[in-house]
Amino acid sequence: MGGARRLLVLLPLAALLLLATAAGATAGVTSGYRRKPEATADMPLDADVFRLPHGYNAPQQVHITLGDQTGTAMTVSWVTASEPGSNTVAYGRSPKKMEMSAQGTQTRYDYYNYTSGFIHHCTLTGLKHGVKYWYAMGFGHTVRTFSFTTPPKPGPDVPFKFGLIGDLGQTFDSNSTLSHYDANGGSAVLFVGDLSYADAYPLHDNNRWDSWARFVERSVAYQPWLWTAGNHELDYAPEIGEATPFKPFTHRYPTPFRASGSTEPLWYSVKIASAHVVVLSSYSAYGQYTPQWTWLDAELRRVDRKVTPWLVVLMHSPWYNSNGYHYMEGESMRVQFERWLVDAKVDLVLAGHVHSYERSHRFSNVAYDIINGKATPVRNLDAPMYINIGDGGNIEGIANNFTKPQPRYSAFREASFGHATLEIKNRTHAYYEWHRNHDGAKVVADSVWLINRYWMPTHDDSN
Amino acid sequence: MGGARRLLVLLPLAALLLLATAAGATAGVTSGYRRKPEATADMPLDADVFRLPHGYNAPQQVHITLGDQTGTAMTVSWVTASEPGSNTVAYGRSPKKMEMSAQGTQTRYDYYNYTSGFIHHCTLTGLKHGVKYWYAMGFGHTVRTFSFTTPPKPGPDVPFKFGLIGDLGQTFDSNSTLSHYDANGGSAVLFVGDLSYADAYPLHDNNRWDSWARFVERSVAYQPWLWTAGNHELDYAPEIGEATPFKPFTHRYPTPFRASGSTEPLWYSVKIASAHVVVLSSYSAYGQYTPQWTWLDAELRRVDRKVTPWLVVLMHSPWYNSNGYHYMEGESMRVQFERWLVDAKVDLVLAGHVHSYERSHRFSNVAYDIINGKATPVRNLDAPMYINIGDGGNIEGIANNFTKPQPRYSAFREASFGHATLEIKNRTHAYYEWHRNHDGAKVVADSVWLINRYWMPTHDDSN
Repeated sequence: MGGARRLLVLLPLAALLLLATAAGATAGVTSGYRRKPEATADMPLDADVFRLPHGYNAPQQVHITLGDQTGTAMTVSWVTASEPGSNTVAYGRSPKKMEMSAQGTQTRYDYYNYTSGFIHHCTLTGLKHGVKYWYAMGFGHTVRTFSFTTPPKPGPDVPFKFGLIGDLGQTFDSNSTLSHYDANGGSAVLFVGDLSYADAYPLHDNNRWDSWARFVERSVAYQPWLWTAGNHELDYAPEIGEATPFKPFTHRYPTPFRASGSTEPLWYSVKIASAHVVVLSSYSAYGQYTPQWTWLDAELRRVDRKVTPWLVVLMHSPWYNSNGYHYMEGESMRVQFERWLVDAKVDLVLAGHVHSYERSHRFSNVAYDIINGKATPVRNLDAPMYINIGDGGNIEGIANNFTKPQPRYSAFREASFGHATLEIKNRTHAYYEWHRNHDGAKVVADSVWLINRYWMPTHDDSN
Repeated sequence: MGGARRLLVLLPLAALLLLATAAGATAGVTSGYRRKPEATADMPLDADVFRLPHGYNAPQQVHITLGDQTGTAMTVSWVTASEPGSNTVAYGRSPKKMEMSAQGTQTRYDYYNYTSGFIHHCTLTGLKHGVKYWYAMGFGHTVRTFSFTTPPKPGPDVPFKFGLIGDLGQTFDSNSTLSHYDANGGSAVLFVGDLSYADAYPLHDNNRWDSWARFVERSVAYQPWLWTAGNHELDYAPEIGEATPFKPFTHRYPTPFRASGSTEPLWYSVKIASAHVVVLSSYSAYGQYTPQWTWLDAELRRVDRKVTPWLVVLMHSPWYNSNGYHYMEGESMRVQFERWLVDAKVDLVLAGHVHSYERSHRFSNVAYDIINGKATPVRNLDAPMYINIGDGGNIEGIANNFTKPQPRYSAFREASFGHATLEIKNRTHAYYEWHRNHDGAKVVADSVWLINRYWMPTHDDSN
């Protein structure tokens, strides 16, 4: 390496660029886009997006997520504030004839000086793939009706469009991001963690968990969002007697973890259309022999790329991030799991946490042995593409402190808020787009055609 | 590095040794000692070491650990098998006059087809430092009496001798190791995890948790053992419906975690004589923002080397291990925490897990940045000495598969069972000895004078 460095000093710039290309990756782009300067502020609690639904004890904060691994079940959650109310959800293929019904459960929790409303969870079963259903709850008091379409049956060439959102919060920027996503029209959201940022308030004011859920209802009551736990879901505050990590989050946001053999709600998998989506927890144990480690080991063996060609992994804290903010925070988990993901030829790793946007080339860093010094990421077509999409637009603001020079693994990076979509076309091709929330919703600020690692493993789609 | 390697090829052996010394560490020793070949077998359940105490509902499996951070409280635990019995412990400074008493609690647990006995925990408070106490329990049925001596009050020059044991199990070798330790006479044991190996039996036969506790009673009823959780404490077996990690362990082995501000029993600290001992959990979350991470960050700031000069850290899975068994399993936790331990000038890190013995020079590996490639351990006098003492002698047998060549960080390694002692003399000096369990108890197979990192930071004691 010393020799290589000395050589570089002697070469003119053009030759250097050639060398970089020969080494397998085009130079990364640090976007020159400059946002209008502005404050990042939470929307006030009396903002229209947070409004309570009309009617006595009306169901509020309605959200849905998959109730099994493929979407023949859907779990509906909502909150009632005045009294417990009914746990029943009626559902059917017409808004006028919801002939099926399911009984849910309810829970509530205390958090320091806050007591939650009555949190209802009800799993609708017996659904068919790719069918629109209407559902209603609030019986006995105020009934509200919504609808969703179940995902298509998993198969190798089933088109599907995901929304990719992270670190959303409840600022004016968050609202813009969500509106842009609504306009761009995905059918399910892969959410990479950090929902409400309630913990940014004194005593982790859990009313901000409620307001957040009212804010996103306009999307998540109508299509399933898949949840990843971020650090803002920890709500770990022993100084006020709250020492159970993830208490508000796990009370409010169920996941279909049992369906994939997981024993905890924070890691699990779903199979939607042509995608097998694995959700990991950056803030749970992942050391060898631990439950998450044990589960992931078995889960990766269960993936069948002939049925679900696209293997996508979600986590909150990124493994490859060249922003000064949260730099290398994901390193400990990378050390534990990267080899497995490369061996499994994962197509895409989605993370959040860093409040900017970054997309990587296909690189890995798995040759390291504690004494061999081989710890520099290298080009590897078996490696996932890493996309950091922690740019939903929360109260903590933009992370605009990129390291220089841009590392070779980094393909594109920009300090903006936004969201992305992932549109799977067939077993070999998927189209990915990233949208700034300062442009019109349809403006594409970054895009790439993803080529499937299992079906076309030698094609470099990241250059 | 490439250049340095080429140079070495040209040099004669004597010059090589000089170079090695100049580079800061004498060559490591891989011991040529060869144990007699033998099977590693658990002692049968009718072995004398497992015998039940006489008398109806007699307290069995008696063990003690610190009940607060310094030993002015002591927690006594025991099991009754026939009926719940009394939770009372009487104690005092004479076996004839135990004028104090404390009320404990009891618990039991189910594990698949096993139901535990009545597990009692009772914390004796109001103790003075450095005083012998007698204690008795089993009132109403069969009373048994034991004694312990509280640790001396923490202070900078307070001599104290610790026993260091790990991965003990309940084989004939385990028994030899424990007898050797008894003969060598420490006053408290720092146990680095893997107690009973009950999980080696079908359905994790928890009767082997009971037998193990009867086996070690001869030591741990008379002096406190400090517990670290190992992978064999996980007892994670979702295939038989047991998905709560550490269930038997946490029901049976309390720790004084609250006294050090921890919120979980698996990480905590104690202050004994001139030592501040930090216990970490290799199998809990340690990522940034997690409870263990948050606690350790605060805990290292609380250490006062003027009061407790010796800073010792316990964990199960080692960060520096040159055995092929469990090679680099501790890497993910090293990546997360090593910088903190080096900055804190930790004197000694004790680990287990690998069933052989290894001691390191003072090395660290903290210069790494994801793109700079600097990931080879280097000599660092601020770094802890790492001792792997997972050689108690359990049913899994010896790990005799050392990597070659011996890494520069490794000072001495030998594939034997045994135990060690750490005798703190004063604020600057401590004497460490390792004993094979195949020699006479007093035979020293490896030893080193430890020089305190805070009080004599420039003195290299590891060469």
